[in-house]
Amino acid sequence: MDHNQTNTTPGPFYQSTIIPNPFLIHRYAAMASTSDDFTKRKLWGGRFTGKNDPLLFAYNESLSYDKRMHAQDIRGSQAYARALVKTGVLNEEEKDQIVAGLEKVGQEWKDGTFKIQSDDEDIHTANERRLTELIGSVGGKLHTGRSRNDQVATDMRLWLIDEVKEIEGHLKDLIRVMIARGRQEVDALMPGYTHLQRAQPIRWSHLLLSHATYFASDLARLRDLMPRISVLPLGSGPLAGNPFAGLDRDAIAADLGFQTVGPNSMNSVSDRDFVVEYLMWASLTAIHLSKMAEDFIIYSTSEFGFMQLSDAYSTGSSIMPQKKNPDSLELLRGKSGRIFGQMSGFMMSLKGIPSTYNKDLQEDKEPLFDAVDTTKNGIQIATGVLSTLNIFPEKMKAALTPDMLATDLAEYLVRKGIPFRETHHISGSAVRLSEQKGCLLSQLTLDDLRTLSDKFDDDVMQVWSFEQSVERRDAKGGTSKRAVLEQCDTLEKLLSA
Amino acid sequence: MDHNQTNTTPGPFYQSTIIPNPFLIHRYAAMASTSDDFTKRKLWGGRFTGKNDPLLFAYNESLSYDKRMHAQDIRGSQAYARALVKTGVLNEEEKDQIVAGLEKVGQEWKDGTFKIQSDDEDIHTANERRLTELIGSVGGKLHTGRSRNDQVATDMRLWLIDEVKEIEGHLKDLIRVMIARGRQEVDALMPGYTHLQRAQPIRWSHLLLSHATYFASDLARLRDLMPRISVLPLGSGPLAGNPFAGLDRDAIAADLGFQTVGPNSMNSVSDRDFVVEYLMWASLTAIHLSKMAEDFIIYSTSEFGFMQLSDAYSTGSSIMPQKKNPDSLELLRGKSGRIFGQMSGFMMSLKGIPSTYNKDLQEDKEPLFDAVDTTKNGIQIATGVLSTLNIFPEKMKAALTPDMLATDLAEYLVRKGIPFRETHHISGSAVRLSEQKGCLLSQLTLDDLRTLSDKFDDDVMQVWSFEQSVERRDAKGGTSKRAVLEQCDTLEKLLSA
Amino acid sequence: MDHNQTNTTPGPFYQSTIIPNPFLIHRYAAMASTSDDFTKRKLWGGRFTGKNDPLLFAYNESLSYDKRMHAQDIRGSQAYARALVKTGVLNEEEKDQIVAGLEKVGQEWKDGTFKIQSDDEDIHTANERRLTELIGSVGGKLHTGRSRNDQVATDMRLWLIDEVKEIEGHLKDLIRVMIARGRQEVDALMPGYTHLQRAQPIRWSHLLLSHATYFASDLARLRDLMPRISVLPLGSGPLAGNPFAGLDRDAIAADLGFQTVGPNSMNSVSDRDFVVEYLMWASLTAIHLSKMAEDFIIYSTSEFGFMQLSDAYSTGSSIMPQKKNPDSLELLRGKSGRIFGQMSGFMMSLKGIPSTYNKDLQEDKEPLFDAVDTTKNGIQIATGVLSTLNIFPEKMKAALTPDMLATDLAEYLVRKGIPFRETHHISGSAVRLSEQKGCLLSQLTLDDLRTLSDKFDDDVMQVWSFEQSVERRDAKGGTSKRAVLEQCDTLEKLLSA
Amino acid sequence: MDHNQTNTTPGPFYQSTIIPNPFLIHRYAAMASTSDDFTKRKLWGGRFTGKNDPLLFAYNESLSYDKRMHAQDIRGSQAYARALVKTGVLNEEEKDQIVAGLEKVGQEWKDGTFKIQSDDEDIHTANERRLTELIGSVGGKLHTGRSRNDQVATDMRLWLIDEVKEIEGHLKDLIRVMIARGRQEVDALMPGYTHLQRAQPIRWSHLLLSHATYFASDLARLRDLMPRISVLPLGSGPLAGNPFAGLDRDAIAADLGFQTVGPNSMNSVSDRDFVVEYLMWASLTAIHLSKMAEDFIIYSTSEFGFMQLSDAYSTGSSIMPQKKNPDSLELLRGKSGRIFGQMSGFMMSLKGIPSTYNKDLQEDKEPLFDAVDTTKNGIQIATGVLSTLNIFPEKMKAALTPDMLATDLAEYLVRKGIPFRETHHISGSAVRLSEQKGCLLSQLTLDDLRTLSDKFDDDVMQVWSFEQSVERRDAKGGTSKRAVLEQCDTLEKLLSA
Repeated sequence: MDHNQTNTTPGPFYQSTIIPNPFLIHRYAAMASTSDDFTKRKLWGGRFTGKNDPLLFAYNESLSYDKRMHAQDIRGSQAYARALVKTGVLNEEEKDQIVAGLEKVGQEWKDGTFKIQSDDEDIHTANERRLTELIGSVGGKLHTGRSRNDQVATDMRLWLIDEVKEIEGHLKDLIRVMIARGRQEVDALMPGYTHLQRAQPIRWSHLLLSHATYFASDLARLRDLMPRISVLPLGSGPLAGNPFAGLDRDAIAADLGFQTVGPNSMNSVSDRDFVVEYLMWASLTAIHLSKMAEDFIIYSTSEFGFMQLSDAYSTGSSIMPQKKNPDSLELLRGKSGRIFGQMSGFMMSLKGIPSTYNKDLQEDKEPLFDAVDTTKNGIQIATGVLSTLNIFPEKMKAALTPDMLATDLAEYLVRKGIPFRETHHISGSAVRLSEQKGCLLSQLTLDDLRTLSDKFDDDVMQVWSFEQSVERRDAKGGTSKRAVLEQCDTLEKLLSA
Repeated sequence: MDHNQTNTTPGPFYQSTIIPNPFLIHRYAAMASTSDDFTKRKLWGGRFTGKNDPLLFAYNESLSYDKRMHAQDIRGSQAYARALVKTGVLNEEEKDQIVAGLEKVGQEWKDGTFKIQSDDEDIHTANERRLTELIGSVGGKLHTGRSRNDQVATDMRLWLIDEVKEIEGHLKDLIRVMIARGRQEVDALMPGYTHLQRAQPIRWSHLLLSHATYFASDLARLRDLMPRISVLPLGSGPLAGNPFAGLDRDAIAADLGFQTVGPNSMNSVSDRDFVVEYLMWASLTAIHLSKMAEDFIIYSTSEFGFMQLSDAYSTGSSIMPQKKNPDSLELLRGKSGRIFGQMSGFMMSLKGIPSTYNKDLQEDKEPLFDAVDTTKNGIQIATGVLSTLNIFPEKMKAALTPDMLATDLAEYLVRKGIPFRETHHISGSAVRLSEQKGCLLSQLTLDDLRTLSDKFDDDVMQVWSFEQSVERRDAKGGTSKRAVLEQCDTLEKLLSA
Repeated sequence: MDHNQTNTTPGPFYQSTIIPNPFLIHRYAAMASTSDDFTKRKLWGGRFTGKNDPLLFAYNESLSYDKRMHAQDIRGSQAYARALVKTGVLNEEEKDQIVAGLEKVGQEWKDGTFKIQSDDEDIHTANERRLTELIGSVGGKLHTGRSRNDQVATDMRLWLIDEVKEIEGHLKDLIRVMIARGRQEVDALMPGYTHLQRAQPIRWSHLLLSHATYFASDLARLRDLMPRISVLPLGSGPLAGNPFAGLDRDAIAADLGFQTVGPNSMNSVSDRDFVVEYLMWASLTAIHLSKMAEDFIIYSTSEFGFMQLSDAYSTGSSIMPQKKNPDSLELLRGKSGRIFGQMSGFMMSLKGIPSTYNKDLQEDKEPLFDAVDTTKNGIQIATGVLSTLNIFPEKMKAALTPDMLATDLAEYLVRKGIPFRETHHISGSAVRLSEQKGCLLSQLTLDDLRTLSDKFDDDVMQVWSFEQSVERRDAKGGTSKRAVLEQCDTLEKLLSA
Repeated sequence: MDHNQTNTTPGPFYQSTIIPNPFLIHRYAAMASTSDDFTKRKLWGGRFTGKNDPLLFAYNESLSYDKRMHAQDIRGSQAYARALVKTGVLNEEEKDQIVAGLEKVGQEWKDGTFKIQSDDEDIHTANERRLTELIGSVGGKLHTGRSRNDQVATDMRLWLIDEVKEIEGHLKDLIRVMIARGRQEVDALMPGYTHLQRAQPIRWSHLLLSHATYFASDLARLRDLMPRISVLPLGSGPLAGNPFAGLDRDAIAADLGFQTVGPNSMNSVSDRDFVVEYLMWASLTAIHLSKMAEDFIIYSTSEFGFMQLSDAYSTGSSIMPQKKNPDSLELLRGKSGRIFGQMSGFMMSLKGIPSTYNKDLQEDKEPLFDAVDTTKNGIQIATGVLSTLNIFPEKMKAALTPDMLATDLAEYLVRKGIPFRETHHISGSAVRLSEQKGCLLSQLTLDDLRTLSDKFDDDVMQVWSFEQSVERRDAKGGTSKRAVLEQCDTLEKLLSA
């Protein structure tokens, strides 16, 4: 006995389960009288006899957003048409008709003249429908051996390859601005903070480059994505592979610019790792932007006063005339949530679904598109903010206080041979002493200091130079001028890698 | 020395930090020549002299989606105008002009004739701009003492109150269909599964009502949301409260139908708990839908064969003519991720931002709107699926196997006085014995059984009735007919609560 | 033909699929020689003949954490024993033996003398094993009609009911401290910020109460949880209900203090909404804590200088002797992520799994336990921070600048009859004029102001009082003294509700 | 005026804000009398005079879990001691003392004899405390120029490098088992599903390799992580770099086996991308495991009957003696949520925090440790499941039905020259015809078929071979025997890459 058949020849109870009135909520009852419009021209129209719920049509359709991939869908179909020639499914003339017809369809999209029909449910059916209108029934040969399952995966990968290349450019621009400022403004000193408490003097450029180092890491990660995006799904059919002898998937890959061919057809039609990986990349990059935004929002307060956004990246208040708000930075910070949400949501959609194509996968496109736009714009806005940001080096300098040299004081004693653990205690006592005396740490006299350790000598007064403190931190990666400029060089090399 | 002033009268280094060419990536340079269009007509135009980055304008604008709240914005403004009369800011005539003007603006939105201007950045500025065009400078009195901070929170709450009421209706419809089927199809028996392995016989209605019980819980939770959504922010100003004596916030609340008045103005302008709570509600409801979808997808396979979706909720394949796919259920399952993503993303946006309004909060609207739409549609689609689903009771019955009564066998011995732990072992041995003999558990002879326990007697054969097994489970909440019909009654009462 | 049977009497290919050497990675080969220890004493030992993977045992076991519910497991079992009397499964004497035996087991846990055996895989099997050791085979009657599925859900709900009550107490303590400080320190004025930019003068108490208002909302939400936690699962069996006539679930609920009885047995054994709801509650509460932490971290910087944590809630640096870091606040902020992760993770575990019990559900306990601990401690630490926090009202006052009164200036003109939109522009021009002149906004002369509007008069100088600005905001929820103290009263009432 | 100083010499209000009794909730009052134990021996003990909240100590401490990195902490410190020689801070003898002392400390950890003291708050302070006990005050020289900020980052990276190497081994084992089975069981045919509906015949090995392809992708991603984990933080100090001339960070990197040196000290002390990246990797890998688990759980049902887990990876029921549950697979599926939660949570902790070290970062270790354990065990359990899984090829074969060849039927007509769109319709009509006739699709007579298209001929009967259908799908990545075995070879090469 075959289950599949049985399902369609049900026993007597079946009749009673054609749900009678009590269940039929009004909308569903009304549906019975909707015209055939929703089903009659569907591609699989051969078998279905019922009606579709218009609400489901809306829930199900993707053309409203996947039309964004119209150019990729055309390119993919043209390459597939060329590949079908070797299989004998198309002859040269038919192939030429199809390729030219697709070109026209693509042109209509570019010109904004493509007319969407009410039953075009996705970009693939829309393009094929239009192709057939333009070139007749030969258009119906294009989909041979192909499924929307391998087609949509191909379109999305082609689309993302283009976007990732563009984003790489924007990211490099951002890092370039940071390098340029890092070099030009290398002389500005400011407090370095840990726990948002003043910790040690640093160069402003050092802070800037600490963020650039995050973005450089994002750049490396972005480059890592490409080999796994650039994998051809086309030629996988709906799940089991392509049945036409002579179909050369390597040639299709070369035609479309893919690096490799998907190794397993069942995997190829369901593999959305490239979407997840992009969303993960974008989420982490967005967190880096949120960190820089947080720093700069705080540094832009009246209380810190280290910097001010240009008017181009600020907005005012509808009620408080004096306000100048760092909206651009707040949006950069806030949108880290948005992108994280796209990633989280799609990962949950993927969790626990069975192999090959399931409709759940349709939830891949909207988060991807939105995350691409949000990161692309966000990176450019960050570049704009940084390109036009005003810094106030004198305010930065004014915020340096001698207690930030307490570690230098302890290290002074280390150089005199005392173990750091002891010098740390001595320096701590010095800080406490200065508080008790109501003076700055640097205002303690040599006599004061000698009550804490007899290793203190006249040369201790040299400790109180912020510039020298910064210059001492000259080990690789440190905040000395040399070390900072070295970082600029290193980053620059990475850009051209 | 005042920090704020200093920022705007910077020292000499300031000049050098007006970033010269090297930093100015081309786009930003180009910006310098864009016309004043982006700034000259802004509400805060009095002070800003620079240009805006058009990309930031796009990043920042919200009108493209917050126009959805046009009616709520109008209602809120009309109520505010009425409230301003008591403060003396408006006289009766001015109030009437404003209320009538707003009515016209609202009508333009309804008629689709409202013309958006390029510098309308949100629904509030758009409506006020249009109001002033229509009624002249008196329109400029409306925003007195009000900020977009309290205005937008008011609009969103008003909008969500309406939506939640509608969603409650849809949810009740869903539960109603389940109760109706639960009653009508109460005689159908099927395997109950744990770990997706056949466990014990149950009524199909019992399974259906287990899902209805989840939705009933969602209904209770939805009702819990309202007192925290229905809290009036208006009258909070930008953060510190409303400075016009006589402003009666209780009266505004009554006018707009809010249950209570926001107790603290700083809280009111930043509190987005109502958004988070709705997103949480929607996420959990969506998980319940995903569970029901998972069950029904599995039961709709050829291998299980217990049910089949109506054509209205299935789709076909572009390449495999025999396919009938439960797309509606897969979308319900997949979209649980989408809604979860909206919740997660917005929660991350909220995390760690300081008090009162920060622009990060603008990330509240898109996830809320999308989640409302997705749950609203999803619940209706689930109702449609359940209203038209065909079940196959004979297939269900055929899947019942005697080994599913092994627990009943153990309980038979319990009734003879043997501790359950022993009867469980004996019954397990019986299962193993039947496997060794290659027969069904129910085909073991009395002699076979007596080798395992001498308490077995002739009456053991009564154990092998699925119907009796089900009927024995008659404690409250069980799968007996009485207990199932009782559940229907209980659910029904809850709907009308 | 019965599938289940077939599986265990496989055809010839079956032999070849008993995977020979090449597949057996070393560890798995080794497993073959492990002793029977892992399986021989399992409760279901009657049937299984193979060995368990020790790694799976570790992956699978839950006793290491679910032992935390030992008291609840004992209470639940005692109540069940009492209920079994009416069914005839236990007589009074047996019941007494079991109840007393369980009491002893419980005492062993309390005394720390309970000895865990290597094959105790969860708290339920451990307790039952020990019970039977203590009272003999009558202990084997306890599990009659009960499953670990309804047992574990009962334990968890009992446990959470206790915890939620305790947490409610801690939350009230936190709010109480805030009310007390709010009242005592009501005279301290400080800048109110939006976008972290100085906006308008406020009372420090008003800020404090804006946070208290969030926590009051958390309190209301916490109280909403209880009716859905306090639902009895016991009596649901493994999925289909309890088969013993006379089992009175309402009586069990009353015995254990549950508000209601789970309405559907299949739902009861899988419903983990109460876990999700708690995790959601905790996540949102944690976000509120993160917001307060963010405010206070920023206000504790040297640059703001408004407050300083007590030493009890700060820590130092291992290298920088002068540092005093607000670690407690940073942990409160950081742990919002931890709790959110617990919620997100468990929601993903739930997504898309079929009805009734699946082992995936075992992922419920660790996140719940961790989130309960983290919120419970976090709320108490916040209370400690707030109880001992030092504020510096003079530093707060010194940060008030006249430009923060620009809105008041605009409102001054509103009172002279000019529409706010115009006064907002005029006030903006005044701010710009003061910047051009290099003076404070309040230092503009009347002549200066009259160049902007002839409505300015002598009385404009009264605008420059921060105290009056604050007092004007007297509408409900505002920052005037009266309005702030009213908030304290309102919050207090809520605590005793 | 210096803010920092002011904070510690507050004005008169300060006194009043030392919160008197009403605020002091009991616990905090009690604290005042706790002994100095919590603070007196802290490393920063020089300055603090107050008490710590014991609850905060618990909230703050990390030794309970970071002791897991004891060996890495020792190794890192030994390398640092060696590096300090060139700076002159240590001479050779001191270095030898420290290195040997650390060796002893490390041995104590290995032997389980290390005694934790009540004020050891993390692994770094514990090890240094013990070192100084063992070798005296020279131990106090070790921390010179180093901070826990660069130390902990070094420890974690060293630890993760080791774990990733081990995990790579486990992942290869998993893929190896899949390749071996893929080759051995290549002759078994089964239904391939899309939307969980029977779609086309495939080889069982093809399905297995579709999962292996996911894991191969995980392997590639895992290898990509290493260059970003293997970056040395040591030598960054607390944030600004190391101040001792001669400190050779490249030499330290070489000593410890790091590939590169952290390029910016401020970045190095806060960069937790390596944690996030690992958590992302683990989350995606876990989703792949959840997909395989879902497939196998469904295929293990009685209704599908394609496979059965070995007893080693199943468990029974405490109440239903006949049950055999695929707990191992359910745990693999469920724990995808757990790992995702770890990732989500930590990402939220990171979002929006300022530069350099903030205590929020302490939330990095527990999720990382847990995710490493969970993936490591999960991969091994998956390997165990696959090594011992029994498949039932005859049950698989029996589930193949002729309607699954409807696409082949359409393609038959394509080979006769009809465009696919038409053949798809014809084949759909054939399916419908067979349903109307109540026969299998393959039982339609040639006459039946000719009513649909006159291109049907005798050779159509060759379409009805499942074997031939599978063999036709011979394009790269397809399900033909050749194509499947080619996949095995490709995967094998990747393992040894």
